[in-house]
Amino acid sequence: MTPLPPVGEPRDLALLGSTGSIGVQALEVVRQLAGRLRIVGLAAHSNVELLTAQIAEFRPPFAALLDERAAAELRGRCAGIPCEIMSGVEGLERIATLESAHLVLGAMLGSAGLPPTLAAIRAGKHIALANKETLVAAGNLVTCAARQHGVYLLPVDSEHSALFQCLVGEDRGAIRKLTLTASGGPFVDRSAKTLAAVTRAEALAHPTWRMGNKITIDSATLMNKGLEVIEAHWLFGCGADAIEVVIHRQSIVHSLVEFLDGSVKAQLGIPDMRLPIQYALLFPERLPGPAPPLDLVAAGRLTFEAPDVGRFPCLRLAFEALQAGGTAPAVLNAANEVAVDAFLRDQLDFMGIPRTIERTLERHTPTAVVDLTVVLAADAWARATAREFIESDNP
Amino acid sequence: MTPLPPVGEPRDLALLGSTGSIGVQALEVVRQLAGRLRIVGLAAHSNVELLTAQIAEFRPPFAALLDERAAAELRGRCAGIPCEIMSGVEGLERIATLESAHLVLGAMLGSAGLPPTLAAIRAGKHIALANKETLVAAGNLVTCAARQHGVYLLPVDSEHSALFQCLVGEDRGAIRKLTLTASGGPFVDRSAKTLAAVTRAEALAHPTWRMGNKITIDSATLMNKGLEVIEAHWLFGCGADAIEVVIHRQSIVHSLVEFLDGSVKAQLGIPDMRLPIQYALLFPERLPGPAPPLDLVAAGRLTFEAPDVGRFPCLRLAFEALQAGGTAPAVLNAANEVAVDAFLRDQLDFMGIPRTIERTLERHTPTAVVDLTVVLAADAWARATAREFIESDNP
Repeated sequence: MTPLPPVGEPRDLALLGSTGSIGVQALEVVRQLAGRLRIVGLAAHSNVELLTAQIAEFRPPFAALLDERAAAELRGRCAGIPCEIMSGVEGLERIATLESAHLVLGAMLGSAGLPPTLAAIRAGKHIALANKETLVAAGNLVTCAARQHGVYLLPVDSEHSALFQCLVGEDRGAIRKLTLTASGGPFVDRSAKTLAAVTRAEALAHPTWRMGNKITIDSATLMNKGLEVIEAHWLFGCGADAIEVVIHRQSIVHSLVEFLDGSVKAQLGIPDMRLPIQYALLFPERLPGPAPPLDLVAAGRLTFEAPDVGRFPCLRLAFEALQAGGTAPAVLNAANEVAVDAFLRDQLDFMGIPRTIERTLERHTPTAVVDLTVVLAADAWARATAREFIESDNP
Repeated sequence: MTPLPPVGEPRDLALLGSTGSIGVQALEVVRQLAGRLRIVGLAAHSNVELLTAQIAEFRPPFAALLDERAAAELRGRCAGIPCEIMSGVEGLERIATLESAHLVLGAMLGSAGLPPTLAAIRAGKHIALANKETLVAAGNLVTCAARQHGVYLLPVDSEHSALFQCLVGEDRGAIRKLTLTASGGPFVDRSAKTLAAVTRAEALAHPTWRMGNKITIDSATLMNKGLEVIEAHWLFGCGADAIEVVIHRQSIVHSLVEFLDGSVKAQLGIPDMRLPIQYALLFPERLPGPAPPLDLVAAGRLTFEAPDVGRFPCLRLAFEALQAGGTAPAVLNAANEVAVDAFLRDQLDFMGIPRTIERTLERHTPTAVVDLTVVLAADAWARATAREFIESDNP
C-alpha cells in the first residue's frame, strides 16, 4: 500500500480514461488545484488528439493508449516531449501500477477498466473509482483485494460519493438503509405505450447531468441507477433489501443514508461531477471547488417519488441480478452494453434494451466469481448471447 | 475528565431538569435502552409529583429540587426509597458533579441551568446540552471550560444535533456555512399588521414539535431560531455571517452544513425530540430508536424559503446581539424571557416581545464575558430593564 501523503502535501495521480467525460473533468479539477494534485500518468482508449493536448499541458512522465495504432501515432506527435508512451493492455496496467502514483482514477469506459483497476489495487494504489463495471461485474474481487491491500475505494459517482460522505465518521454497522436518488431521466413522465418509440436523440438529451452517450442512455432506462444499486452493495456492504431508489427530479440531493436510530444523513450540491471527483482525489481534505454554492431558497423545493419499475424494467432487472448474485450482475452489465450499443446504432428500439437483457439473464446460470477469468467468460458469453438475440430480431 | 465507557457498556447519567419536556423525553429514551443507560441522579425545579414518580421508577441514588420547600415535601414522599434528596443551588450542583456520572444532561429551563452545567463541565462530565441559555449567555465560558476539561458538548436541540451529526468525521476548518432550518412557527404566513393581535392560545399551538410553553412562544417569534444561531456560533465556531436561517415548513431537514468544496450535508428525520436526545446520550453509538423511519416518498416534497426578518424582528435582534458580542446575547436572552413571560400573562402583545428586547438592547453597552458574575449581572440588569419597559407600558 502506497500511503497517501499528509493533508496539504502534493498527491500524485494516474488517470485511466483521461479522454472520457470523467477524465476530462478530473483534469479540470487538477488544473484548478495545481501544486496539490500532480499527474504522473495518463491512459486512454484511442483518442490521440485529446491525449496529445493533455500530455502537452500536464507533462506526465508516462502515458498509454489501449489501441496500438493510436499509440504509434501518439508517439509521433509527442516526439520531443519527455513522456514515455506505452500501449495495449500491458501499457494500461503499467500506468495503473506506476511506482510514483499515490492514487489511481479508474475512469475507463466499460469492462476495459476492470483489469487495470485490479492491477492498481494489487500494486497498493488507492483508487478513485468511476468505472461502474469494476464493481458491478467483479465487486467481490475488487472489494476483497482493496481490503487485503489496505487501499481506499473512493467512489466518484455523485450518488456513491454522497453515501461515502454521509458515512464519514460513522460506524457502517449502524446503516439501516441506503437511498439512491435518480433524476428519473428524460422519460420519467412518459407513458409505457410511447416508451418503445423513444428515439436516440431524445434519449441522449439528459435533463441535468453532462455525461457520455452510454451513461446517458443508461440514465434514460434507469439501468444506470440499477448498476449503482449493485455498486452500493459492494461499496457499503448492504443487501438488495437495504437499498432503495427514489426519483428526485432536481438532482440536488445526491443520496441518503438511514441509520439504525432513524436518523438520516444526505449529501446535497449542485449537479456538477467536478464536486465528487475533487472529493475523491483530495479525500479526506476539502478545498474550495469550482462549483457555485447550492442555493436552497432559490431551489425552493425538493421532491421525492417512487420509481415505476413497470415502465423502467432495467431497474427491476438490476435488483434481480444483485439478488441472484455470482456472475449475474456481470451478465446484466454486458448484455446492457451490447443492447445500448445496438440502440445507439438504431438496431434496437428503446424497450428492446431491457428485453434483450432479460432474455440474456434468463438463459444464464450464475456461478461464483472466484477470479477474473470467470467474470470475463460471463461477460463474453453475455455479449455473444445478447448480440444473437438482437440479430435474430433484425434478420 | 470522566471517560465515556466503551461502546456497548452501560453509561451512567445525571439529568438536570428531569421533569421538563426534554427531561421527560430523555427518560423515555432511557426506559427503552435500560441496561445501556442508567440514571444516577435526577434534578428539577419544583415538580414534586413527577420527580417522585421518576425516582420510584428509575431508582437513582441521588435527586434534588431547586425549591427548598418542594425538596422537603419530596423527602417525605420518598421516605423508604434509598435516594438521597438534596435541595437548592447546592443540591443541583451536587447532582451535576456526581462522581459516578459519565454524562450530564443539562435540560433546566432558563438561566437556572447555567451554574450547574458549568459545574458539571469543571467536574469533567461530558454534557448533553439542551439548555439554550448556557451557550447563549455564556458561550465562551462554557466552550472554553469544555475544551480545557476535555469533555464533549453534545447538542440536544434537533438543529444542533443535525449539524453535529453532519460534522462527524469532518474537519471543522472546512465549514463554509451552517444553515439552520426553522418550521416558521404558526404565524409564518400571517401579515405584519395582524401579528400584533396574536393571542396566547394561538401562539402556543406549534405545528410540528411537542415542546414547553416558553420555547413554543420563542418558536412563534423566531427568537428560538435566533438563540439557536448564537448557540451554533459557540458550538461550531462559525461567525454570524457564516450562519443562515431557512424556513422549512416540513421540519424534516433538521439543518445543513456547507463545506468549502461546495458539498452540503444535511441530517433529516421525522420531528421527534427523542431522536436527537438518544443520539446525544449514546454518542457515538447508534441503536434502534423509538421513532418510525422517515418516508421521503410519503413526505413528497421539502420546501425552503427565506425568513422575513421584517415580520419576525427577533431573528434580526439575535443576529445583531451575536455581532455585538460580549454580554449582548445574555441581555437578549434575559429580556426575551421577561417579555415572553409577560406575553403569557397577557401583559404584553405579541409584537411587544421584540419591541421590549430591542429597547433593552439599545440601552445596553456590551462588556466582555470574563466570568459568570458578568453574565449574571447582565442577566439581572436586562430582566429589571425589560420589566421596567413592560410596566411603563401597562401603568
